[in-house]
Amino acid sequence: MLENIELSKKMNKDEYKKVMPGLTIELAALQREATQFGIPVMIVFEGWDAAGKGTLINRLIMPLDPRGFKVHPTSAPNEEERHRPFLWRFWTKIPAKGRLAIFDRSWYGRVLVERVDKLIGKDEVRSSIRDINSFERMLNDDGYLVIKLFLHISKETQKKRFEKLENNSSTKWKVNKDDWRHHKQYGKYYRAASEMLDATDTASAGWVVVEAEDEEYAVKKVYDTVIGALKKRIAEIHAHEKKKARAPEIILDRVTGSALDRVDLTVVLDKAGYETRVKKCQKRVRELEHEIYAKRIPVIVMYEGWDAAGKGGNIRRLTQNMDPRGYEVFPIAAPSSVELAHHYLWRFWNSIPKAGHIGIFDRTWYGRVLVERIEGFSPEPVWKRAFREINEAELHLAEFGTVLIKFWLHISPEEQLARFEERQNTVHKQWKITEEDWRNREKWDKYKEAVDETIYRTSTEYAPWTILEANCKYHARIKALETFIETVEKAVERR
Amino acid sequence: MLENIELSKKMNKDEYKKVMPGLTIELAALQREATQFGIPVMIVFEGWDAAGKGTLINRLIMPLDPRGFKVHPTSAPNEEERHRPFLWRFWTKIPAKGRLAIFDRSWYGRVLVERVDKLIGKDEVRSSIRDINSFERMLNDDGYLVIKLFLHISKETQKKRFEKLENNSSTKWKVNKDDWRHHKQYGKYYRAASEMLDATDTASAGWVVVEAEDEEYAVKKVYDTVIGALKKRIAEIHAHEKKKARAPEIILDRVTGSALDRVDLTVVLDKAGYETRVKKCQKRVRELEHEIYAKRIPVIVMYEGWDAAGKGGNIRRLTQNMDPRGYEVFPIAAPSSVELAHHYLWRFWNSIPKAGHIGIFDRTWYGRVLVERIEGFSPEPVWKRAFREINEAELHLAEFGTVLIKFWLHISPEEQLARFEERQNTVHKQWKITEEDWRNREKWDKYKEAVDETIYRTSTEYAPWTILEANCKYHARIKALETFIETVEKAVERR
Repeated sequence: MLENIELSKKMNKDEYKKVMPGLTIELAALQREATQFGIPVMIVFEGWDAAGKGTLINRLIMPLDPRGFKVHPTSAPNEEERHRPFLWRFWTKIPAKGRLAIFDRSWYGRVLVERVDKLIGKDEVRSSIRDINSFERMLNDDGYLVIKLFLHISKETQKKRFEKLENNSSTKWKVNKDDWRHHKQYGKYYRAASEMLDATDTASAGWVVVEAEDEEYAVKKVYDTVIGALKKRIAEIHAHEKKKARAPEIILDRVTGSALDRVDLTVVLDKAGYETRVKKCQKRVRELEHEIYAKRIPVIVMYEGWDAAGKGGNIRRLTQNMDPRGYEVFPIAAPSSVELAHHYLWRFWNSIPKAGHIGIFDRTWYGRVLVERIEGFSPEPVWKRAFREINEAELHLAEFGTVLIKFWLHISPEEQLARFEERQNTVHKQWKITEEDWRNREKWDKYKEAVDETIYRTSTEYAPWTILEANCKYHARIKALETFIETVEKAVERR
Repeated sequence: MLENIELSKKMNKDEYKKVMPGLTIELAALQREATQFGIPVMIVFEGWDAAGKGTLINRLIMPLDPRGFKVHPTSAPNEEERHRPFLWRFWTKIPAKGRLAIFDRSWYGRVLVERVDKLIGKDEVRSSIRDINSFERMLNDDGYLVIKLFLHISKETQKKRFEKLENNSSTKWKVNKDDWRHHKQYGKYYRAASEMLDATDTASAGWVVVEAEDEEYAVKKVYDTVIGALKKRIAEIHAHEKKKARAPEIILDRVTGSALDRVDLTVVLDKAGYETRVKKCQKRVRELEHEIYAKRIPVIVMYEGWDAAGKGGNIRRLTQNMDPRGYEVFPIAAPSSVELAHHYLWRFWNSIPKAGHIGIFDRTWYGRVLVERIEGFSPEPVWKRAFREINEAELHLAEFGTVLIKFWLHISPEEQLARFEERQNTVHKQWKITEEDWRNREKWDKYKEAVDETIYRTSTEYAPWTILEANCKYHARIKALETFIETVEKAVERR
């Protein structure tokens, strides 16, 4: 994309002074409209050092209502960030509906600086580009407007600007050895940037190259681009084209067989058998917790299952002997208003464990294709899309080295009824049962179909489902512990 | 407090097995009650290395509903944390109403490890103890239940436990050189801990020393302490004693004079005078932004003022030429439900700029003693208490080196009326004026009294108020810029 860019483009200063006041008023009005329509906007500034990112961002935000935007300066990942997949720090920073986030450098650092500096290999470049495209597609599908600007200057201009900064005592500190090293590698960066722009110029989020040698020209182009993109999105919403344009029909293959029907729910483990094994398993879990920590392996354990299948008790046995500093349990309730205002994966990204730690989810992002599907909280194209989104998110985690363990706690409808009745009839258990549980129970068959489809579509090599036969709680607990042990042991050996 | 502790205390194992099941059920039920009553609980575990904090926390959380608590392991502050006052990382982690936070080590690291390792001097120890007591008092006053446990073992026991850990290959890594170094300094730590316990054993948050040589004895004592504290608090609420006990009448001295009456609102700066000065000031602001960054000075600028006094435009002129990577504007609207569930200072602590950065607040924590007072959102004892709380919070910031600039934008009621009417009559300004603005205007005199009292009580040496005569916007903008420049220049010189 950089080949045919004419860097000599300039804008007449008088002309600039004439048009800008109108553009700033227009942009301010569009920001208010975007807020009103609940459009979340992300604007990415990438480009050469000294291309003027700071100045251009400053010009862009001037007319904006400060209550509605946030600038995110991005430098090399810090320790907290290096302990998570590279998109983590951006997933957690996506704006809420109606808000605007400006990224001064972004997730593209991964495939530019880290690539040229050989911090990541060829395979990682490829998978990172795939992850980036998937990230932006998910955002766009959810209604996010992603605007990407690449500020382009020549090697000569960069040199002149560095020298100018160096000759001024108050800006001298802004140019360091790394900058000059990067400058010498301009050619390498140029090739990496070209490739990156081509590989990530997608329908969900296309690139705009901004000729940034002339400040006025660049400011005007940034304004035109952002104003144009906002107007287009707002027009789409007005014309109700949005849905049609951004939610194409998703065709999925037919689900074959029922994983749940194949489960043998008669398996039983007696109390004595349980008690001899549980302590041993828990001891091993604690040892593995230490090994995970020493080897910096992140682990995610996801619990899904029928109401009253025993998720809480199962999690308790898994964590009973663990060091509380090494794990955290995340109970996933109905989303809060803040969570609803973001992409549905956002709240899970906010809880991703860092390398060496264990995150245990009591209910998970599979809520999208289970409760949200059955209760109609998400329309069909939305939950259908989620299978791919979840698989991609799990792949991103797995390629970072995350161990993913997914449990479905399976019981029969008869067993559920017995447990519901027992809860209702036991004083200190009554708080555990609600009207909603009874209502969900009536939709057993619908849920079963959704669970079967979920297991079929999201049992991947890197994140397989394990069904726990949970009519017998003892059996389900030991199987969960043993699955954890076996899976983590393998991961520890591989390191 | 450590002198008279008898470390030989033990608990019979059979007795332990007999009483614990009842205690766990009781604790689980109390957690549910605390949630129901919206009591936020903080449990601090401090004590010697190898005193068994991990194990005791594990035993304590076992019966708890994982949806209601979070364990915060505390190690040495990381880079992000070192760039803020030491309480920042704890203020941001206080639990919401009805939730429980467990701190595995805590803010006391400041006056233990950092003190013994001579990372802070004597004066800082003293001011840190004052800050800690103020922090805990504010929490207690707001309804937080703060339980502090110090796990005590002898030097000999510590040695034995270290050796045991070292002799087991899977736990060997847990003992390092620092641990042995600390062990050798047991005596020094003992004296520091004794002093700390005495100095922070307050009515708001008292210490309980737990004899931790015998595990069963320690577990039982932790349970008894937590159960006892929860029961007491719940009983207080039942008996409506809470209010009386925890909100004593606050007697404040009489406010003398009116700062607002002394303001000369006739000062005027013409457009030509403004335009020659504004660019120069903004250039200087940008230079200072760089110096602040280079010297790692944090700056907070707070804006308060009458509706339509011109806060937005004033902030815009202050930031117009700044590098957007160095500052952030925080617009403070009505608190969200999540914010309401925390101490009112919590949301501001979440936005504290890190060293080298500028945080600009469009409305501030002074909302507590202005809008919340006038509109009756906070009862009298609550807003009266806030003067001291805010002064203490600002002192904590100032002693970390934060530059605090506080602006009150003052206009006359006539000028406000003129501006309201202009907004109403100009199409593209109508969004700026609401019914609420008109309602607030009717309460002018009440607000004036509150503002005068606020300025009187919170103009401190370390965080003085500057009143901007804002009938003339040009004058107010230049005065804000010049005040910023002057204050920051002084801070830069001092470094």
